[in-house]
Amino acid sequence: MTTASHGTPRWLSDEEQRVWRAYLHATTLLEDHLDRQLQRDAGMPHIYYGLLVQLSQAPRRRMRMTELARETKITRSRLSHAVARLEKNGWVRREDCASDKRGQNACLTEEGFEVLRRTAPGHVEAVRQAMFDRLSPEQVGQLGEIMRVMAEALQPTDPNADLPWLR
Amino acid sequence: MTTASHGTPRWLSDEEQRVWRAYLHATTLLEDHLDRQLQRDAGMPHIYYGLLVQLSQAPRRRMRMTELARETKITRSRLSHAVARLEKNGWVRREDCASDKRGQNACLTEEGFEVLRRTAPGHVEAVRQAMFDRLSPEQVGQLGEIMRVMAEALQPTDPNADLPWLR
Repeated sequence: MTTASHGTPRWLSDEEQRVWRAYLHATTLLEDHLDRQLQRDAGMPHIYYGLLVQLSQAPRRRMRMTELARETKITRSRLSHAVARLEKNGWVRREDCASDKRGQNACLTEEGFEVLRRTAPGHVEAVRQAMFDRLSPEQVGQLGEIMRVMAEALQPTDPNADLPWLR
Repeated sequence: MTTASHGTPRWLSDEEQRVWRAYLHATTLLEDHLDRQLQRDAGMPHIYYGLLVQLSQAPRRRMRMTELARETKITRSRLSHAVARLEKNGWVRREDCASDKRGQNACLTEEGFEVLRRTAPGHVEAVRQAMFDRLSPEQVGQLGEIMRVMAEALQPTDPNADLPWLR
């Protein structure tokens, strides 16, 4: 924030403003679209679906809560809230961690796995229709690289970095 | 959803999964980062800031509520909630629309404009650091085109389309 505090603000050019606005529009619309699709098909928002996917890919379908927050890039409090709801649905179960008394695991239940199995085809189709069906193979490659660079920049290794899963 | 309902699901390839995951990571981290920055600097989330910006650029700093929802790509109920909070802060005022008795305008107050003026330099710096400082000019152009295509696809002109601002 050095420049912002001490110098002339580096305002966006017209072109940058157009790009930024398109980014806000596309990301807002896509998140709404996927929330809507998942609420309709499985009664859950997109973020819950992401947690179930993550657990389904973990060994023995379970993960440390701290690890799950880091992998899904959300805060611990948001994760706690979501897991409590998923537990109420019978899709996830929390259990104490054998190796660390303060730690907790989240485990995907059979029922949760079944919900995921049923919901995945419609969800992947929604993602395809909104993104992969619209872009050329070159654009898919470009988008991947751009998002990788941005995600990396937003996760500095500085131990004092203000990262969601450390809150 | 034809394919999802009647055929073999079109699962994502490994490369597509990597791109999709990078997209989710970058967009989730950036939204968290901007919410955090704006909460710290002005006590409001990113979505409220977007509403103030939109109003500040409108003639006489006022817009129809329906138009404001369409421009920011959010639902009417989400907009109502946000505007009620902004009104409480003294940053926005609602007024009945002279030309349409059922319509309402949202107007940016002088105080709201002042908050925006004070907050904009830090916000634009955060956006620059997370996006424009990281990408080459070619990538900025690619990102703009990709996001434009996606945003367009997510706003079909079909009169029955399930668009946020129609809800």
